[in-house]
Amino acid sequence: MQGKTQFNVGVDGGGTKCRAEIFDNKGSALGAGIGGPANVARVGEKATGSIVDAVTRAIEDAGLAGRVLLSQCRVSAGLAGATVEAARQMLDQWRHPFATFSFITDLHAAVVGAHGGKKGAVMVVGTGSCTASYAHDKVQQYGGHGFTLGDKGSGAWLGCEAVKATLEALDGVAPSSALTQAVCEFYDAYSTGEFVNKLNNGLPAEFARVAPLVFEFATRQDPIAGDLVHRAASYLSAIAERALSDCEGNLVLIGGLSELVRPYLNARVQRAIVPAQFGPEWGAVLLDSMRVQ
Amino acid sequence: MQGKTQFNVGVDGGGTKCRAEIFDNKGSALGAGIGGPANVARVGEKATGSIVDAVTRAIEDAGLAGRVLLSQCRVSAGLAGATVEAARQMLDQWRHPFATFSFITDLHAAVVGAHGGKKGAVMVVGTGSCTASYAHDKVQQYGGHGFTLGDKGSGAWLGCEAVKATLEALDGVAPSSALTQAVCEFYDAYSTGEFVNKLNNGLPAEFARVAPLVFEFATRQDPIAGDLVHRAASYLSAIAERALSDCEGNLVLIGGLSELVRPYLNARVQRAIVPAQFGPEWGAVLLDSMRVQ
Repeated sequence: MQGKTQFNVGVDGGGTKCRAEIFDNKGSALGAGIGGPANVARVGEKATGSIVDAVTRAIEDAGLAGRVLLSQCRVSAGLAGATVEAARQMLDQWRHPFATFSFITDLHAAVVGAHGGKKGAVMVVGTGSCTASYAHDKVQQYGGHGFTLGDKGSGAWLGCEAVKATLEALDGVAPSSALTQAVCEFYDAYSTGEFVNKLNNGLPAEFARVAPLVFEFATRQDPIAGDLVHRAASYLSAIAERALSDCEGNLVLIGGLSELVRPYLNARVQRAIVPAQFGPEWGAVLLDSMRVQ
Repeated sequence: MQGKTQFNVGVDGGGTKCRAEIFDNKGSALGAGIGGPANVARVGEKATGSIVDAVTRAIEDAGLAGRVLLSQCRVSAGLAGATVEAARQMLDQWRHPFATFSFITDLHAAVVGAHGGKKGAVMVVGTGSCTASYAHDKVQQYGGHGFTLGDKGSGAWLGCEAVKATLEALDGVAPSSALTQAVCEFYDAYSTGEFVNKLNNGLPAEFARVAPLVFEFATRQDPIAGDLVHRAASYLSAIAERALSDCEGNLVLIGGLSELVRPYLNARVQRAIVPAQFGPEWGAVLLDSMRVQ
Protein backbone atom coordinates (compact mmCIF):
# COMPACT_ATOMS: atom_id res chain seq x y z
CA MET A 1 0.00 0.00 0.00
CA GLN A 2 2.17 2.79 -1.25
CA GLY A 3 -0.64 5.26 -1.65
CA LYS A 4 -0.44 4.97 -5.42
CA THR A 5 -3.25 3.87 -7.72
CA GLN A 6 -3.26 0.12 -8.28
CA PHE A 7 -4.18 -1.51 -11.57
CA ASN A 8 -5.62 -4.95 -12.08
CA VAL A 9 -3.70 -7.05 -14.58
CA GLY A 10 -4.90 -10.45 -15.78
CA VAL A 11 -2.58 -12.98 -17.36
CA ASP A 12 -3.49 -15.99 -19.50
CA GLY A 13 -0.45 -18.30 -19.60
CA GLY A 14 -0.17 -21.25 -21.97
CA GLY A 15 2.40 -23.56 -23.49
CA THR A 16 3.56 -21.27 -26.30
CA LYS A 17 2.94 -17.77 -24.95
CA CYS A 18 1.26 -15.75 -22.23
CA ARG A 19 -0.94 -12.71 -22.63
CA ALA A 20 -1.52 -9.90 -20.10
CA GLU A 21 -4.28 -7.29 -20.06
CA ILE A 22 -4.22 -4.23 -17.85
CA PHE A 23 -7.62 -2.90 -16.71
CA ASP A 24 -8.89 0.36 -15.33
CA ASN A 25 -10.94 0.37 -12.13
CA LYS A 26 -14.16 -0.16 -14.12
CA GLY A 27 -12.82 -3.31 -15.78
CA SER A 28 -12.09 -1.85 -19.21
CA ALA A 29 -8.92 -3.12 -20.86
CA LEU A 30 -6.34 -0.35 -21.31
CA GLY A 31 -3.72 -2.44 -23.10
CA ALA A 32 -2.40 -5.93 -23.73
CA GLY A 33 1.04 -7.55 -24.01
CA ILE A 34 2.49 -10.90 -24.99
CA GLY A 35 5.29 -12.83 -23.24
CA GLY A 36 6.96 -16.20 -23.72
CA PRO A 37 5.71 -19.66 -22.62
CA ALA A 38 4.11 -19.82 -19.19
CA ASN A 39 3.09 -23.43 -18.71
CA VAL A 40 4.57 -23.60 -15.22
CA ALA A 41 4.68 -27.39 -15.15
CA ARG A 42 6.77 -27.50 -18.32
CA VAL A 43 8.94 -24.38 -18.34
CA GLY A 44 9.28 -23.84 -14.56
CA GLU A 45 10.80 -20.52 -13.47
CA LYS A 46 11.00 -19.35 -17.07
CA ALA A 47 7.23 -18.79 -16.76
CA THR A 48 7.78 -16.02 -14.21
CA GLY A 49 9.98 -14.14 -16.71
CA SER A 50 7.29 -14.55 -19.37
CA ILE A 51 4.68 -13.12 -17.00
CA VAL A 52 6.82 -10.09 -16.14
CA ASP A 53 7.47 -9.49 -19.87
CA ALA A 54 3.78 -9.70 -20.74
CA VAL A 55 2.75 -7.33 -17.94
CA THR A 56 5.51 -4.85 -18.87
CA ARG A 57 4.34 -4.85 -22.48
CA ALA A 58 0.69 -4.42 -21.46
CA ILE A 59 1.68 -1.31 -19.50
CA GLU A 60 3.54 -0.01 -22.57
CA ASP A 61 0.61 -0.87 -24.85
CA ALA A 62 -1.67 1.15 -22.54
CA GLY A 63 0.64 4.16 -22.97
CA LEU A 64 1.48 4.02 -19.27
CA ALA A 65 5.19 3.20 -19.49
CA GLY A 66 7.09 5.17 -16.86
CA ARG A 67 3.84 6.22 -15.18
CA VAL A 68 2.67 2.84 -13.89
CA LEU A 69 5.23 0.69 -12.08
CA LEU A 70 5.08 -3.09 -11.77
CA SER A 71 4.73 -2.51 -8.02
CA GLN A 72 1.37 -0.84 -8.71
CA CYS A 73 -0.02 -3.89 -10.51
CA ARG A 74 -2.27 -6.45 -8.85
CA VAL A 75 -1.50 -9.40 -11.11
CA SER A 76 -3.77 -12.45 -11.34
CA ALA A 77 -2.71 -15.25 -13.65
CA GLY A 78 -4.46 -18.28 -15.07
CA LEU A 79 -1.63 -20.65 -15.89
CA ALA A 80 -1.43 -23.96 -17.71
CA GLY A 81 0.26 -26.56 -15.52
CA ALA A 82 -0.77 -24.84 -12.28
CA THR A 83 -2.33 -28.05 -11.01
CA VAL A 84 1.14 -29.58 -10.60
CA GLU A 85 2.30 -29.36 -6.99
CA ALA A 86 5.96 -28.54 -7.72
CA ALA A 87 4.90 -25.74 -10.04
CA ARG A 88 2.57 -24.30 -7.38
CA GLN A 89 5.34 -24.31 -4.80
CA MET A 90 7.67 -22.48 -7.19
CA LEU A 91 5.01 -19.79 -7.78
CA ASP A 92 4.22 -19.48 -4.06
CA GLN A 93 7.90 -18.77 -3.37
CA TRP A 94 8.35 -16.40 -6.29
CA ARG A 95 9.65 -12.95 -5.21
CA HIS A 96 7.49 -11.19 -7.77
CA PRO A 97 7.83 -7.45 -8.51
CA PHE A 98 4.09 -6.73 -8.36
CA ALA A 99 1.80 -5.25 -5.68
CA THR A 100 0.16 -8.66 -5.39
CA PHE A 101 0.34 -11.88 -7.39
CA SER A 102 -2.16 -14.71 -7.38
CA PHE A 103 -2.62 -17.63 -9.72
CA ILE A 104 -5.11 -20.29 -10.66
CA THR A 105 -5.23 -22.70 -13.61
CA ASP A 106 -5.80 -21.42 -17.13
CA LEU A 107 -9.03 -23.43 -17.26
CA HIS A 108 -10.29 -21.86 -14.02
CA ALA A 109 -9.64 -18.35 -15.39
CA ALA A 110 -11.27 -19.26 -18.71
CA VAL A 111 -14.51 -20.59 -17.23
CA VAL A 112 -14.86 -17.69 -14.80
CA GLY A 113 -14.12 -15.13 -17.53
CA ALA A 114 -16.42 -16.79 -20.06
CA HIS A 115 -19.46 -16.35 -17.83
CA GLY A 116 -18.41 -13.08 -16.16
CA GLY A 117 -17.95 -14.77 -12.79
CA LYS A 118 -21.35 -16.47 -12.87
CA LYS A 119 -21.91 -20.23 -13.06
CA GLY A 120 -21.34 -21.90 -16.43
CA ALA A 121 -19.25 -24.31 -18.42
CA VAL A 122 -16.53 -24.20 -21.10
CA MET A 123 -15.33 -26.71 -23.65
CA VAL A 124 -11.79 -26.36 -25.00
CA VAL A 125 -11.03 -28.02 -28.33
CA GLY A 126 -7.64 -27.14 -29.73
CA THR A 127 -4.44 -29.17 -29.62
CA GLY A 128 -5.91 -30.69 -26.44
CA SER A 129 -9.48 -31.04 -25.22
CA CYS A 130 -11.44 -30.75 -21.98
CA THR A 131 -14.51 -29.27 -20.39
CA ALA A 132 -14.95 -27.50 -17.07
CA SER A 133 -17.84 -26.28 -14.97
CA TYR A 134 -17.86 -23.38 -12.53
CA ALA A 135 -20.52 -23.19 -9.83
CA HIS A 136 -20.57 -22.35 -6.13
CA ASP A 137 -16.95 -21.14 -6.31
CA LYS A 138 -15.83 -24.59 -7.49
CA VAL A 139 -14.27 -25.65 -10.78
CA GLN A 140 -14.69 -29.21 -11.97
CA GLN A 141 -12.73 -30.53 -14.97
CA TYR A 142 -13.60 -33.43 -17.31
CA GLY A 143 -11.16 -34.90 -19.81
CA GLY A 144 -7.98 -32.99 -20.58
CA HIS A 145 -5.70 -35.73 -19.31
CA GLY A 146 -2.99 -35.09 -21.91
CA PHE A 147 -1.95 -36.60 -25.22
CA THR A 148 -0.92 -40.02 -23.88
CA LEU A 149 -3.89 -40.66 -21.60
CA GLY A 150 -6.74 -38.78 -23.18
CA ASP A 151 -7.46 -35.47 -24.87
CA LYS A 152 -9.87 -37.51 -26.97
CA GLY A 153 -11.59 -35.47 -29.64
CA SER A 154 -8.78 -32.88 -29.65
CA GLY A 155 -6.70 -31.86 -32.65
CA ALA A 156 -3.80 -34.01 -31.49
CA TRP A 157 -6.13 -36.99 -31.04
CA LEU A 158 -7.85 -36.53 -34.42
CA GLY A 159 -4.51 -36.14 -36.18
CA CYS A 160 -2.89 -39.11 -34.45
CA GLU A 161 -5.91 -41.33 -35.14
CA ALA A 162 -5.84 -40.25 -38.80
CA VAL A 163 -2.15 -41.20 -38.99
CA LYS A 164 -2.85 -44.57 -37.32
CA ALA A 165 -5.64 -45.24 -39.83
CA THR A 166 -3.25 -44.34 -42.63
CA LEU A 167 -0.62 -46.77 -41.30
CA GLU A 168 -3.22 -49.55 -41.11
CA ALA A 169 -4.20 -48.80 -44.70
CA LEU A 170 -0.54 -48.90 -45.78
CA ASP A 171 -0.16 -52.23 -43.94
CA GLY A 172 -3.18 -53.53 -45.84
CA VAL A 173 -5.19 -54.36 -42.72
CA ALA A 174 -7.77 -51.56 -43.05
CA PRO A 175 -9.29 -49.71 -46.00
CA SER A 176 -7.68 -46.63 -47.49
CA SER A 177 -9.69 -43.53 -48.40
CA ALA A 178 -9.28 -40.03 -49.73
CA LEU A 179 -8.34 -39.02 -46.17
CA THR A 180 -5.52 -41.55 -45.81
CA GLN A 181 -4.12 -40.42 -49.17
CA ALA A 182 -4.35 -36.77 -48.07
CA VAL A 183 -2.57 -37.62 -44.80
CA CYS A 184 0.32 -39.14 -46.81
CA GLU A 185 0.57 -35.97 -48.88
CA PHE A 186 0.28 -33.73 -45.82
CA TYR A 187 3.26 -35.37 -44.08
CA ASP A 188 5.03 -36.21 -47.36
CA ALA A 189 5.25 -39.83 -46.18
CA TYR A 190 4.16 -42.76 -48.33
CA SER A 191 5.31 -45.81 -46.35
CA THR A 192 4.91 -46.90 -42.74
CA GLY A 193 8.68 -46.48 -42.30
CA GLU A 194 8.58 -42.85 -43.44
CA PHE A 195 5.73 -42.10 -41.04
CA VAL A 196 7.55 -43.72 -38.14
CA ASN A 197 10.73 -41.75 -38.88
CA LYS A 198 8.82 -38.48 -39.02
CA LEU A 199 6.20 -38.88 -36.31
CA ASN A 200 7.33 -41.54 -33.84
CA ASN A 201 8.36 -38.79 -31.41
CA GLY A 202 5.85 -36.29 -32.78
CA LEU A 203 4.59 -33.66 -30.37
CA PRO A 204 0.80 -33.19 -29.95
CA ALA A 205 0.93 -29.97 -32.02
CA GLU A 206 2.50 -31.87 -34.94
CA PHE A 207 -0.53 -34.20 -35.05
CA ALA A 208 -3.00 -31.37 -34.48
CA ARG A 209 -1.77 -29.68 -37.68
CA VAL A 210 -3.60 -32.29 -39.78
CA ALA A 211 -6.87 -32.14 -37.82
CA PRO A 212 -8.59 -29.48 -40.01
CA LEU A 213 -8.09 -31.88 -42.93
CA VAL A 214 -10.06 -34.54 -41.04
CA PHE A 215 -12.99 -32.14 -40.66
CA GLU A 216 -12.73 -31.17 -44.32
CA PHE A 217 -12.93 -34.79 -45.47
CA ALA A 218 -15.75 -35.51 -43.03
CA THR A 219 -17.88 -32.91 -44.84
CA ARG A 220 -17.03 -34.74 -48.10
CA GLN A 221 -18.46 -38.00 -46.70
CA ASP A 222 -15.06 -39.71 -46.35
CA PRO A 223 -15.93 -42.75 -44.19
CA ILE A 224 -12.71 -42.73 -42.10
CA ALA A 225 -12.85 -38.97 -41.49
CA GLY A 226 -16.56 -39.19 -40.69
CA ASP A 227 -15.98 -41.96 -38.17
CA LEU A 228 -13.18 -40.02 -36.44
CA VAL A 229 -15.17 -36.79 -36.24
CA HIS A 230 -18.21 -38.60 -34.87
CA ARG A 231 -16.11 -40.41 -32.24
CA ALA A 232 -14.55 -37.06 -31.30
CA ALA A 233 -17.93 -35.32 -31.08
CA SER A 234 -19.51 -38.16 -29.11
CA TYR A 235 -16.80 -37.97 -26.44
CA LEU A 236 -16.81 -34.16 -26.39
CA SER A 237 -20.61 -34.13 -26.04
CA ALA A 238 -20.30 -36.52 -23.09
CA ILE A 239 -17.76 -34.40 -21.21
CA ALA A 240 -19.74 -31.25 -22.07
CA GLU A 241 -22.91 -32.77 -20.62
CA ARG A 242 -21.07 -33.66 -17.40
CA ALA A 243 -19.91 -30.06 -17.03
CA LEU A 244 -23.37 -28.67 -17.89
CA SER A 245 -25.11 -30.91 -15.38
CA ASP A 246 -22.75 -29.65 -12.63
CA CYS A 247 -23.55 -25.99 -13.15
CA GLU A 248 -26.95 -25.96 -14.85
CA GLY A 249 -25.58 -23.09 -16.93
CA ASN A 250 -24.49 -22.41 -20.49
CA LEU A 251 -21.49 -23.56 -22.47
CA VAL A 252 -18.77 -21.40 -24.04
CA LEU A 253 -16.59 -22.93 -26.76
CA ILE A 254 -12.86 -22.17 -26.71
CA GLY A 255 -9.99 -23.28 -28.93
CA GLY A 256 -9.13 -23.35 -32.62
CA LEU A 257 -11.15 -26.45 -33.50
CA SER A 258 -14.27 -25.82 -31.42
CA GLU A 259 -16.24 -24.17 -34.25
CA LEU A 260 -15.37 -27.06 -36.59
CA VAL A 261 -16.64 -29.70 -34.16
CA ARG A 262 -19.70 -27.68 -33.09
CA PRO A 263 -22.15 -29.01 -35.75
CA TYR A 264 -21.37 -32.60 -34.72
CA LEU A 265 -22.12 -32.11 -31.00
CA ASN A 266 -25.39 -33.50 -29.73
CA ALA A 267 -28.49 -31.30 -29.73
CA ARG A 268 -28.63 -30.70 -25.96
CA VAL A 269 -25.03 -29.50 -25.96
CA GLN A 270 -25.53 -27.30 -29.04
CA ARG A 271 -28.55 -25.62 -27.45
CA ALA A 272 -26.45 -24.66 -24.39
CA ILE A 273 -23.76 -22.82 -26.39
CA VAL A 274 -23.41 -19.05 -25.81
CA PRO A 275 -20.65 -16.54 -26.71
CA ALA A 276 -18.00 -15.77 -24.09
CA GLN A 277 -18.59 -12.66 -21.98
CA PHE A 278 -14.92 -12.03 -21.16
CA GLY A 279 -11.52 -13.59 -21.75
CA PRO A 280 -9.44 -15.56 -19.24
CA GLU A 281 -7.42 -12.44 -18.33
CA TRP A 282 -10.52 -10.81 -16.85
CA GLY A 283 -11.53 -14.16 -15.38
CA ALA A 284 -8.27 -14.26 -13.39
CA VAL A 285 -8.86 -10.71 -12.13
CA LEU A 286 -12.47 -11.48 -11.20
CA LEU A 287 -11.42 -14.54 -9.21
CA ASP A 288 -8.76 -12.59 -7.37
CA SER A 289 -11.23 -9.83 -6.46
CA MET A 290 -13.82 -12.39 -5.32
CA ARG A 291 -11.22 -13.94 -3.04
CA VAL A 292 -10.22 -10.65 -1.50
CA GLN A 293 -13.79 -9.83 -0.56
CA MET B 1 42.35 -65.61 -41.99
CA GLN B 2 44.74 -66.47 -39.23
CA GLY B 3 44.55 -70.21 -39.72
CA LYS B 4 42.67 -70.63 -36.46
CA THR B 5 39.26 -72.24 -36.08
CA GLN B 6 36.42 -69.79 -36.42
CA PHE B 7 33.21 -69.92 -34.36
CA ASN B 8 29.81 -68.64 -35.30
CA VAL B 9 28.26 -66.34 -32.72
CA GLY B 10 24.70 -65.06 -32.97
CA VAL B 11 23.51 -62.00 -31.07
CA ASP B 12 19.94 -60.97 -30.30
CA GLY B 13 20.00 -57.30 -29.29
CA GLY B 14 17.02 -55.50 -27.76
CA GLY B 15 16.16 -52.44 -25.76
CA THR B 16 17.05 -53.77 -22.31
CA LYS B 17 19.74 -56.37 -23.02
CA CYS B 18 21.47 -58.40 -25.71
CA ARG B 19 22.15 -62.11 -25.72
CA ALA B 20 24.92 -63.96 -27.56
CA GLU B 21 25.20 -67.67 -28.32
CA ILE B 22 28.38 -69.32 -29.53
CA PHE B 23 27.92 -72.35 -31.79
CA ASP B 24 30.14 -75.24 -32.87
CA ASN B 25 30.48 -76.01 -36.56
CA LYS B 26 27.41 -78.26 -36.46
CA GLY B 27 25.22 -75.49 -35.07
CA SER B 28 25.01 -76.67 -31.47
CA ALA B 29 25.13 -73.95 -28.86
CA LEU B 30 28.24 -74.16 -26.69
CA GLY B 31 27.43 -71.26 -24.38
CA ALA B 32 25.49 -68.04 -23.99
CA GLY B 33 26.15 -64.60 -22.50
CA ILE B 34 24.20 -61.45 -21.71
CA GLY B 35 25.26 -57.83 -22.34
CA GLY B 36 23.62 -54.45 -21.89
CA PRO B 37 21.08 -52.67 -24.14
CA ALA B 38 21.69 -53.00 -27.88
CA ASN B 39 18.85 -51.08 -29.54
CA VAL B 40 21.19 -49.26 -31.91
CA ALA B 41 18.67 -46.53 -32.69
CA ARG B 42 18.27 -45.66 -29.03
CA VAL B 43 21.63 -46.33 -27.35
CA GLY B 44 23.95 -45.71 -30.34
CA GLU B 45 27.58 -46.75 -29.87
CA LYS B 46 26.81 -48.15 -26.43
CA ALA B 47 25.26 -51.07 -28.31
CA THR B 48 28.67 -52.12 -29.66
CA GLY B 49 30.02 -52.39 -26.11
CA SER B 50 26.99 -54.48 -25.13
CA ILE B 51 27.61 -56.82 -28.07
CA VAL B 52 31.30 -57.29 -27.17
CA ASP B 53 30.33 -57.97 -23.54
CA ALA B 54 27.73 -60.57 -24.52
CA VAL B 55 30.09 -62.35 -26.91
CA THR B 56 32.90 -62.36 -24.31
CA ARG B 57 30.55 -63.89 -21.72
CA ALA B 58 29.28 -66.50 -24.19
CA ILE B 59 32.90 -67.60 -24.76
CA GLU B 60 33.40 -67.83 -20.99
CA ASP B 61 30.12 -69.70 -20.54
CA ALA B 62 31.31 -72.24 -23.14
CA GLY B 63 34.46 -72.81 -21.07
CA LEU B 64 36.56 -71.39 -23.91
CA ALA B 65 37.97 -68.28 -22.17
CA GLY B 66 41.61 -67.82 -23.13
CA ARG B 67 41.32 -70.44 -25.87
CA VAL B 68 38.94 -68.67 -28.24
CA LEU B 69 39.71 -65.05 -29.08
CA LEU B 70 37.18 -62.47 -30.24
CA SER B 71 39.14 -62.37 -33.50
CA GLN B 72 38.10 -65.99 -34.12
CA CYS B 73 34.38 -65.19 -33.86
CA ARG B 74 32.16 -64.65 -36.87
CA VAL B 75 29.50 -62.50 -35.19
CA SER B 76 26.04 -62.01 -36.68
CA ALA B 77 23.62 -59.77 -34.82
CA GLY B 78 19.89 -59.15 -35.04
CA LEU B 79 19.45 -55.72 -33.53
CA ALA B 80 16.43 -53.64 -32.57
CA GLY B 81 16.63 -50.24 -34.25
CA ALA B 82 18.75 -51.50 -37.16
CA THR B 83 16.25 -50.09 -39.64
CA VAL B 84 17.32 -46.56 -38.71
CA GLU B 85 19.81 -45.19 -41.25
CA ALA B 86 22.07 -43.35 -38.76
CA ALA B 87 22.34 -46.51 -36.66
CA ARG B 88 23.26 -48.59 -39.72
CA GLN B 89 26.00 -46.16 -40.66
CA MET B 90 27.44 -46.29 -37.16
CA LEU B 91 27.52 -50.11 -37.28
CA ASP B 92 29.03 -50.14 -40.78
CA GLN B 93 31.88 -47.96 -39.54
CA TRP B 94 32.43 -49.89 -36.30
CA ARG B 95 36.02 -51.15 -35.92
CA HIS B 96 34.82 -54.37 -34.31
CA PRO B 97 37.23 -56.87 -32.74
CA PHE B 98 35.72 -59.93 -34.43
CA ALA B 99 36.74 -62.02 -37.47
CA THR B 100 33.60 -60.73 -39.19
CA PHE B 101 30.55 -58.77 -38.09
CA SER B 102 27.21 -58.53 -39.83
CA PHE B 103 23.85 -57.28 -38.66
CA ILE B 104 20.19 -57.33 -39.56
CA THR B 105 17.09 -56.31 -37.60
CA ASP B 106 16.00 -58.32 -34.56
CA LEU B 107 12.77 -59.18 -36.36
CA HIS B 108 14.66 -60.50 -39.39
CA ALA B 109 16.80 -62.74 -37.16
CA ALA B 110 13.73 -63.92 -35.27
CA VAL B 111 11.70 -64.93 -38.31
CA VAL B 112 14.64 -66.71 -39.95
CA GLY B 113 15.56 -68.53 -36.72
CA ALA B 114 11.94 -69.46 -35.97
CA HIS B 115 11.61 -71.42 -39.20
CA GLY B 116 15.21 -72.63 -39.45
CA GLY B 117 15.89 -70.45 -42.50
CA LYS B 118 12.78 -71.62 -44.37
CA LYS B 119 9.82 -69.41 -45.24
CA GLY B 120 7.40 -68.57 -42.46
CA ALA B 121 5.98 -65.87 -40.25
CA VAL B 122 6.29 -64.63 -36.69
CA MET B 123 4.04 -62.60 -34.46
CA VAL B 124 5.59 -60.66 -31.58
CA VAL B 125 3.30 -59.68 -28.70
CA GLY B 126 5.12 -58.22 -25.73
CA THR B 127 5.50 -54.58 -24.76
CA GLY B 128 5.15 -53.91 -28.50
CA SER B 129 3.51 -55.87 -31.29
CA CYS B 130 4.15 -56.75 -34.93
CA THR B 131 4.23 -59.58 -37.42
CA ALA B 132 6.76 -60.42 -40.10
CA SER B 133 6.98 -62.82 -43.00
CA TYR B 134 10.11 -64.35 -44.49
CA ALA B 135 10.05 -65.77 -48.01
CA HIS B 136 12.33 -65.61 -51.05
CA ASP B 137 15.07 -64.00 -48.94
CA LYS B 138 12.75 -61.09 -48.13
CA VAL B 139 11.35 -59.92 -44.81
CA GLN B 140 8.10 -57.99 -44.72
CA GLN B 141 6.85 -56.35 -41.52
CA TYR B 142 3.29 -55.44 -40.50
CA GLY B 143 2.44 -53.26 -37.52
CA GLY B 144 5.17 -52.52 -35.01
CA HIS B 145 5.07 -48.78 -35.59
CA GLY B 146 5.79 -47.90 -31.96
CA PHE B 147 3.77 -46.82 -28.95
CA THR B 148 2.59 -43.46 -30.34
CA LEU B 149 1.58 -44.61 -33.82
CA GLY B 150 0.58 -48.21 -33.40
CA ASP B 151 1.70 -51.34 -31.58
CA LYS B 152 -2.02 -52.04 -31.31
CA GLY B 153 -2.78 -55.21 -29.41
CA SER B 154 0.55 -55.03 -27.53
CA GLY B 155 1.00 -54.95 -23.78
CA ALA B 156 1.64 -51.20 -23.88
CA TRP B 157 -1.50 -50.67 -25.97
CA LEU B 158 -3.71 -52.88 -23.77
CA GLY B 159 -2.42 -51.20 -20.61
CA CYS B 160 -2.79 -47.67 -21.96
CA GLU B 161 -6.32 -48.38 -23.24
CA ALA B 162 -7.24 -49.85 -19.84
CA VAL B 163 -5.96 -46.68 -18.15
CA LYS B 164 -7.90 -44.49 -20.62
CA ALA B 165 -11.08 -46.50 -19.92
CA THR B 166 -10.45 -46.04 -16.20
CA LEU B 167 -10.08 -42.26 -16.62
CA GLU B 168 -13.35 -42.11 -18.59
CA ALA B 169 -15.05 -44.05 -15.81
CA LEU B 170 -13.61 -41.67 -13.19
CA ASP B 171 -14.85 -38.72 -15.29
CA GLY B 172 -18.31 -40.33 -15.33
CA VAL B 173 -18.54 -40.49 -19.12
CA ALA B 174 -18.13 -44.29 -19.46
CA PRO B 175 -19.05 -47.23 -17.24
CA SER B 176 -16.71 -48.54 -14.57
CA SER B 177 -16.10 -52.26 -14.08
CA ALA B 178 -14.06 -54.67 -12.00
CA LEU B 179 -11.18 -53.98 -14.42
CA THR B 180 -11.22 -50.20 -13.94
CA GLN B 181 -11.25 -50.71 -10.17
CA ALA B 182 -8.33 -53.14 -10.46
CA VAL B 183 -6.41 -50.64 -12.62
CA CYS B 184 -6.84 -48.02 -9.85
CA GLU B 185 -5.45 -50.46 -7.31
CA PHE B 186 -2.61 -51.55 -9.59
CA TYR B 187 -1.32 -48.00 -10.05
CA ASP B 188 -2.46 -46.86 -6.57
CA ALA B 189 -4.31 -43.99 -8.24
CA TYR B 190 -7.94 -43.16 -7.52
CA SER B 191 -8.50 -39.87 -9.31
CA THR B 192 -7.80 -38.64 -12.83
CA GLY B 193 -5.24 -36.22 -11.38
CA GLU B 194 -3.31 -39.02 -9.68
CA PHE B 195 -3.23 -41.03 -12.93
CA VAL B 196 -2.02 -38.03 -14.92
CA ASN B 197 0.74 -37.32 -12.38
CA LYS B 198 1.91 -40.94 -12.47
CA LEU B 199 1.46 -41.93 -16.10
CA ASN B 200 1.38 -38.79 -18.25
CA ASN B 201 4.98 -39.45 -19.28
CA GLY B 202 4.72 -43.22 -18.74
CA LEU B 203 6.98 -45.40 -20.86
CA PRO B 204 5.44 -48.25 -22.87
CA ALA B 205 6.78 -50.80 -20.36
CA GLU B 206 4.95 -49.03 -17.53
CA PHE B 207 1.63 -49.54 -19.33
CA ALA B 208 2.50 -53.10 -20.38
CA ARG B 209 2.85 -54.07 -16.70
CA VAL B 210 -0.93 -53.98 -16.28
CA ALA B 211 -1.72 -55.95 -19.47
CA PRO B 212 -1.82 -59.42 -17.83
CA LEU B 213 -4.58 -58.05 -15.59
CA VAL B 214 -6.63 -57.16 -18.69
CA PHE B 215 -6.39 -60.79 -19.88
CA GLU B 216 -7.29 -62.04 -16.40
CA PHE B 217 -10.45 -59.91 -16.27
CA ALA B 218 -11.35 -60.89 -19.85
CA THR B 219 -11.56 -64.52 -18.74
CA ARG B 220 -13.88 -63.36 -15.93
CA GLN B 221 -16.27 -61.79 -18.49
CA ASP B 222 -15.43 -58.20 -17.54
CA PRO B 223 -17.02 -56.24 -20.43
CA ILE B 224 -14.27 -53.59 -20.72
CA ALA B 225 -11.44 -56.14 -20.53
CA GLY B 226 -13.24 -58.40 -22.99
CA ASP B 227 -13.68 -55.57 -25.47
CA LEU B 228 -10.00 -54.58 -25.24
CA VAL B 229 -8.75 -58.16 -25.66
CA HIS B 230 -11.03 -58.73 -28.64
CA ARG B 231 -9.93 -55.48 -30.29
CA ALA B 232 -6.30 -56.50 -29.68
CA ALA B 233 -6.84 -60.00 -31.09
CA SER B 234 -8.76 -58.72 -34.10
CA TYR B 235 -5.89 -56.43 -35.11
CA LEU B 236 -3.24 -59.05 -34.35
CA SER B 237 -5.14 -61.62 -36.42
CA ALA B 238 -5.25 -59.15 -39.31
CA ILE B 239 -1.50 -58.46 -39.30
CA ALA B 240 -0.81 -62.19 -38.82
CA GLU B 241 -2.93 -63.02 -41.89
CA ARG B 242 -1.04 -60.46 -43.95
CA ALA B 243 2.27 -62.09 -42.99
CA LEU B 244 0.91 -65.61 -43.56
CA SER B 245 -0.41 -64.75 -47.02
CA ASP B 246 3.03 -63.43 -48.00
CA CYS B 247 4.89 -66.60 -47.16
CA GLU B 248 2.25 -69.34 -47.27
CA GLY B 249 4.02 -70.80 -44.24
CA ASN B 250 3.43 -71.25 -40.54
CA LEU B 251 3.37 -68.79 -37.66
CA VAL B 252 5.62 -68.73 -34.61
CA LEU B 253 4.50 -66.71 -31.58
CA ILE B 254 7.10 -64.64 -29.73
CA GLY B 255 6.89 -62.35 -26.70
CA GLY B 256 5.60 -62.45 -23.17
CA LEU B 257 1.91 -61.92 -23.98
CA SER B 258 1.61 -64.08 -27.10
CA GLU B 259 0.33 -67.16 -25.26
CA LEU B 260 -2.27 -65.06 -23.42
CA VAL B 261 -3.66 -63.61 -26.66
CA ARG B 262 -3.45 -66.91 -28.59
CA PRO B 263 -6.95 -68.24 -27.70
CA TYR B 264 -8.54 -65.02 -28.99
CA LEU B 265 -6.88 -65.08 -32.43
CA ASN B 266 -9.06 -66.13 -35.34
CA ALA B 267 -9.23 -69.81 -36.33
CA ARG B 268 -7.11 -69.51 -39.50
CA VAL B 269 -4.31 -67.85 -37.58
CA GLN B 270 -4.52 -70.34 -34.70
CA ARG B 271 -4.25 -73.29 -37.11
CA ALA B 272 -1.03 -71.86 -38.57
CA ILE B 273 0.79 -71.67 -35.22
CA VAL B 274 3.87 -73.92 -34.76
CA PRO B 275 6.68 -73.91 -32.17
CA ALA B 276 9.91 -72.08 -33.03
CA GLN B 277 12.72 -74.22 -34.45
CA PHE B 278 15.55 -71.94 -33.31
CA GLY B 279 16.08 -68.66 -31.56
CA PRO B 280 17.04 -65.33 -33.17
CA GLU B 281 20.73 -65.90 -32.34
CA TRP B 282 20.82 -68.89 -34.71
CA GLY B 283 18.65 -66.97 -37.17
CA ALA B 284 21.31 -64.25 -37.39
CA VAL B 285 24.02 -66.87 -38.00
CA LEU B 286 21.91 -68.63 -40.64
CA LEU B 287 21.32 -65.38 -42.50
CA ASP B 288 25.02 -64.56 -42.44
CA SER B 289 25.96 -67.99 -43.78
CA MET B 290 23.31 -67.76 -46.51
CA ARG B 291 24.72 -64.42 -47.57
CA VAL B 292 28.28 -65.70 -47.73
CA GLN B 293 27.30 -68.56 -50.00
